[in-house]
Amino acid sequence: MSAKIPVSILGATGTVGQKFVRLLAEHPWFEIVSVAASEQSAGKRYGEIVRWREGTPLPERIALMTVQRAEPSIPGRITFSAIEADIAGEVEQAFARAGKYVVTNTKTHRMDPDIPLLVPEINPDHLNLLARQQRERHWSGGIVANPNCSTAGLVLGVAPLQQAFGIEKIFVATMQAVSGAGYPGVPSLDALGNVIPFIGGEEEKMEQETRKILGSFASERITDASMTVSAHANRVAVVDGHLEVVSLGFGRRVTPAEAVRALEAFRAPGDIATLPSTPARPVEVDSRADRPQSRLDLERGNGMTVTVGRVRPCNLLDLRLVLLSHNTIRGAAGAAIQNAELLVARGYVGR
Amino acid sequence: MSAKIPVSILGATGTVGQKFVRLLAEHPWFEIVSVAASEQSAGKRYGEIVRWREGTPLPERIALMTVQRAEPSIPGRITFSAIEADIAGEVEQAFARAGKYVVTNTKTHRMDPDIPLLVPEINPDHLNLLARQQRERHWSGGIVANPNCSTAGLVLGVAPLQQAFGIEKIFVATMQAVSGAGYPGVPSLDALGNVIPFIGGEEEKMEQETRKILGSFASERITDASMTVSAHANRVAVVDGHLEVVSLGFGRRVTPAEAVRALEAFRAPGDIATLPSTPARPVEVDSRADRPQSRLDLERGNGMTVTVGRVRPCNLLDLRLVLLSHNTIRGAAGAAIQNAELLVARGYVGR
Amino acid sequence: MSAKIPVSILGATGTVGQKFVRLLAEHPWFEIVSVAASEQSAGKRYGEIVRWREGTPLPERIALMTVQRAEPSIPGRITFSAIEADIAGEVEQAFARAGKYVVTNTKTHRMDPDIPLLVPEINPDHLNLLARQQRERHWSGGIVANPNCSTAGLVLGVAPLQQAFGIEKIFVATMQAVSGAGYPGVPSLDALGNVIPFIGGEEEKMEQETRKILGSFASERITDASMTVSAHANRVAVVDGHLEVVSLGFGRRVTPAEAVRALEAFRAPGDIATLPSTPARPVEVDSRADRPQSRLDLERGNGMTVTVGRVRPCNLLDLRLVLLSHNTIRGAAGAAIQNAELLVARGYVGR
Amino acid sequence: MSAKIPVSILGATGTVGQKFVRLLAEHPWFEIVSVAASEQSAGKRYGEIVRWREGTPLPERIALMTVQRAEPSIPGRITFSAIEADIAGEVEQAFARAGKYVVTNTKTHRMDPDIPLLVPEINPDHLNLLARQQRERHWSGGIVANPNCSTAGLVLGVAPLQQAFGIEKIFVATMQAVSGAGYPGVPSLDALGNVIPFIGGEEEKMEQETRKILGSFASERITDASMTVSAHANRVAVVDGHLEVVSLGFGRRVTPAEAVRALEAFRAPGDIATLPSTPARPVEVDSRADRPQSRLDLERGNGMTVTVGRVRPCNLLDLRLVLLSHNTIRGAAGAAIQNAELLVARGYVGR
Repeated sequence: MSAKIPVSILGATGTVGQKFVRLLAEHPWFEIVSVAASEQSAGKRYGEIVRWREGTPLPERIALMTVQRAEPSIPGRITFSAIEADIAGEVEQAFARAGKYVVTNTKTHRMDPDIPLLVPEINPDHLNLLARQQRERHWSGGIVANPNCSTAGLVLGVAPLQQAFGIEKIFVATMQAVSGAGYPGVPSLDALGNVIPFIGGEEEKMEQETRKILGSFASERITDASMTVSAHANRVAVVDGHLEVVSLGFGRRVTPAEAVRALEAFRAPGDIATLPSTPARPVEVDSRADRPQSRLDLERGNGMTVTVGRVRPCNLLDLRLVLLSHNTIRGAAGAAIQNAELLVARGYVGR
Repeated sequence: MSAKIPVSILGATGTVGQKFVRLLAEHPWFEIVSVAASEQSAGKRYGEIVRWREGTPLPERIALMTVQRAEPSIPGRITFSAIEADIAGEVEQAFARAGKYVVTNTKTHRMDPDIPLLVPEINPDHLNLLARQQRERHWSGGIVANPNCSTAGLVLGVAPLQQAFGIEKIFVATMQAVSGAGYPGVPSLDALGNVIPFIGGEEEKMEQETRKILGSFASERITDASMTVSAHANRVAVVDGHLEVVSLGFGRRVTPAEAVRALEAFRAPGDIATLPSTPARPVEVDSRADRPQSRLDLERGNGMTVTVGRVRPCNLLDLRLVLLSHNTIRGAAGAAIQNAELLVARGYVGR
Repeated sequence: MSAKIPVSILGATGTVGQKFVRLLAEHPWFEIVSVAASEQSAGKRYGEIVRWREGTPLPERIALMTVQRAEPSIPGRITFSAIEADIAGEVEQAFARAGKYVVTNTKTHRMDPDIPLLVPEINPDHLNLLARQQRERHWSGGIVANPNCSTAGLVLGVAPLQQAFGIEKIFVATMQAVSGAGYPGVPSLDALGNVIPFIGGEEEKMEQETRKILGSFASERITDASMTVSAHANRVAVVDGHLEVVSLGFGRRVTPAEAVRALEAFRAPGDIATLPSTPARPVEVDSRADRPQSRLDLERGNGMTVTVGRVRPCNLLDLRLVLLSHNTIRGAAGAAIQNAELLVARGYVGR
Repeated sequence: MSAKIPVSILGATGTVGQKFVRLLAEHPWFEIVSVAASEQSAGKRYGEIVRWREGTPLPERIALMTVQRAEPSIPGRITFSAIEADIAGEVEQAFARAGKYVVTNTKTHRMDPDIPLLVPEINPDHLNLLARQQRERHWSGGIVANPNCSTAGLVLGVAPLQQAFGIEKIFVATMQAVSGAGYPGVPSLDALGNVIPFIGGEEEKMEQETRKILGSFASERITDASMTVSAHANRVAVVDGHLEVVSLGFGRRVTPAEAVRALEAFRAPGDIATLPSTPARPVEVDSRADRPQSRLDLERGNGMTVTVGRVRPCNLLDLRLVLLSHNTIRGAAGAAIQNAELLVARGYVGR
């Protein structure tokens, strides 16, 4: 146990915070040494104040921890952040200034030009932004972010096609789970038997983040990918799992068979494949006519695999397809943990 | 009562058949005089064999009717057809040959070049195909069809924009209710907490029917509208109501404000506005940020109004919008009844 | 219009408040003349601050009303109250003191010994408590309450059996809709694909209110019915409609056939039958094996009819049955409006 | 691998059959050597005809198996049966006659006086009926059954109280998942936003099976427990998990604290505790006010643990409580597998 890297969790009582607790409780490299939450929770036992909603029991060791204030002095060399966006800016920067590596799921810093927006299977080189970040901000630590939940599935599902053929246009309509809005989040009177065709800021996030993640790194800056993205974001009565229907336009004609081959050939590059959270197959193609489905295909790769199906021609662009990702794992806590693993693998955090 | 036009219903025990019974029971022009169903039902009381699932009680008069075989000799000058597609061809043609006007919700004849695929607010002139139909097929009656449920909402929601600006491209992703699949239809294990990104034949229907309905009639033939349509059809856990997110490309730049004006200005033309089933506003624009929603906006215009919302620019085409229609009323039984009203208004069936 | 009785609504922006607006907008006797809500809403247009969620459009006349503070000086001779329980005591009493008749859906005063807890079809004589209330409290107005939503269906469904046979024991398990908790109310993460076997205070309300409502009035006091009630309250993923399974024990053996006869014979007594909100059949028996069902049988009697089904022997008590009621109509706004009608019919409020 | 006991699955393509495949694929004692299904499936690859709906991938080895006819000659010393009830009688008996041990989830033989209806934690001695079964029926094999899914949770949840205090009366109302009805099973139009207060035969099963399972074995016969059970069975919009609210009457006064102590003290007896499928705690008490909940507490003990909550006094009987069990694991496939393990542990099937 003592050989593990001590980590802390900010916003530990929320939905994503609980997922961090669950996923980190058994992690081979990391050990939770502090949990932080809001002022009014500080000083109390985690087990007493959390409204634990994960399907597995709250680990006894964590339940007994005293909740801390979110101050950089709390133990932990890596800090997983799931705090509210309106306070994340100040808090996360304070941790980075104090020498901590902040792995954040919060949106606040995602589009900062010197903060890497990481999907390790796609753009691990963006991590090199940390040098500029530390130099310009005079930080001994740093901040790395993972994408918004609906972006996470999209970029991973199309990255193999981007790498193989170059994508020029992405049309995407999402059908997103309610867990993406946290707890209490979406009222049941809005969710039951309904579709809500609006999620505040979501379409803009997908359109911007996708271009940054798929962009190129050179001379200490990211050049956005040149594609155009148009998103329609919808909330549906699903607990977990964002399903997205996508049309893609390429610079040249691409057949469904070519696309399937590229998707099936995709593997995490080099050392990324050996990270504990990287699934054997980051992208899987399901050839059944009516798959992927939100409820049935969610758990592949422990929630880190994106499933793609229905690859077929599009009347307007080149290809149509369907993709599914686990919004609270690949789209939130799992993604952040994989990013932290990358920080270790690349030597930013010593073992 | 005696002044009403006698009508019959084929497939009267199914989901759409029951909706016909409900909507026609109080109709000002029509009176149900016979109900027909499968061989094994014939000879029994309708009330004994139907598994009535409408929210209002089954009218006593209809409950007591003896179910007929679907033969042209049954009473009724207009025949509403909701029979299975695999037998609809032969049966509906037999009725038309025998001098009946068949108003069908079944897909079988929709794309026949001499059969009008009608949305009275959009293409009432297509009804003139009946002359050719009667001459070439040697029928004294005829067949008119209404569109597939997901097409019905789409074409009405975009028709005002087609008329005002000319549409070149339509990208549409649907989130369709389970009632569209009839009863028993979609298993609950497929629907609960799930999205099924596939509905057999649905995307093709939307792509073909839309172009026919929005096409032009001249010299006894329909010329399809020249637009390109790409559809992604999805089933969601909603009882009634097809919600569709749409991107549109026009021949010229169209602003959201222009589009909203055209949508709000849209009215049913001439005598169509006076049909009993035509709503005061066939298309309504809801300006609230998160509307229309499947559960809340479904009943406008007694289920015959299409609600449009979120009219905004599209990064790829010109405009994005959301539209909602009632799939078993505007998309099925209500549409057929409105078509029958048109037959009367235009003198094909005397009062 | 001028002949109608002016009424006000307290808590007009909430779920029940909106239902009041909807039901009263077309009421033959009442006319909404003021709407009141919280401090921060006062002074604004109702249409601007309400998040209208009824399926029918917000009436333009109401949308334009300026929201008032909940003070007795606002216009309206009858006041419909849907305000929060924690402030209802003081506010409702102030109105009654000022000469208004307060018809409340809030729980605060329900169990007060001098406040009638009314179901007009069952205990209209309890209204006579008003004399004592006015004398002892020195009020020129008064307060009448309707039961909690889950009690409302139960008491009406069993009242015919109580009157015919005398009930000694009631065992009831509820499956209640989320709308009973208002908006935002139950989080979708709690409701979707789930049952929550706990609703705070609900079981106690059912056990106490049932005995008061079915109790007898004499000498200006209510004597509770002597039955014992044991309730299990559960929340299920249903939008509207409380379904309850019930076992009943009587003082003597009662067969299902006798019970069905009593249920079917039940009618609203005397002048109650002529109130606008009283349904033709306050209780209907559905003899189909799998009915009533929450989604299909809810709208009977415009939501004021309780449907009873599956009347059969019980191994432990005498009879088992299932009953369904509309929780926001018969269990809230509709019940209060019917109570107000009773106040008019009995002369407390002049026409 | 070669040391494992070869087993076969009858009805392998259905919902329970698939669950057998999933749970047995990794079983430490058993190895699937044949899968059988209906006539029309025989001869085809399992992977080609099954509509696999488990969340984990279909094991490749099983996918490649050729589906057999359900004839006793197929390989496998233990036969797991999930075949249709109408053919189960003849088929299962043929297997038993041929020397196979049939572990059936089908209802057909459950109430036969010489067939043990087993819950290993409760009545392992009922297995001794096999001697009579083999002698009287002239079988070299035998049949053992597990209870209906709604009975399984009930009996396990109350068994500790029965053993400690003796139960005289059970009132139970169920809220059952749709997976209990198999696939396609419950139509989504029945399940969505609805409660169906009827499941054919379910209440009778609960009332009869409970008394047999909790009964005593002596002189080669079961004497039913003398309690009275009254059940109300309901279907709700939940995928997996039967939640049941229960009132219990004992021969003497039992406090909630006493009951909780008995529930928490309950352990599987002797060798039962060492069976691979027996959970560490067959019954767990959750003291949170609103638990257990269908979606959150289902997976305890790999779906074999029954969770009990809300132990409190009952106004009519002695105690009220809520219990939850996994209907397709503890209530079906998992229960059968545990029964097969018992057959091995007790030496009926050699290792």
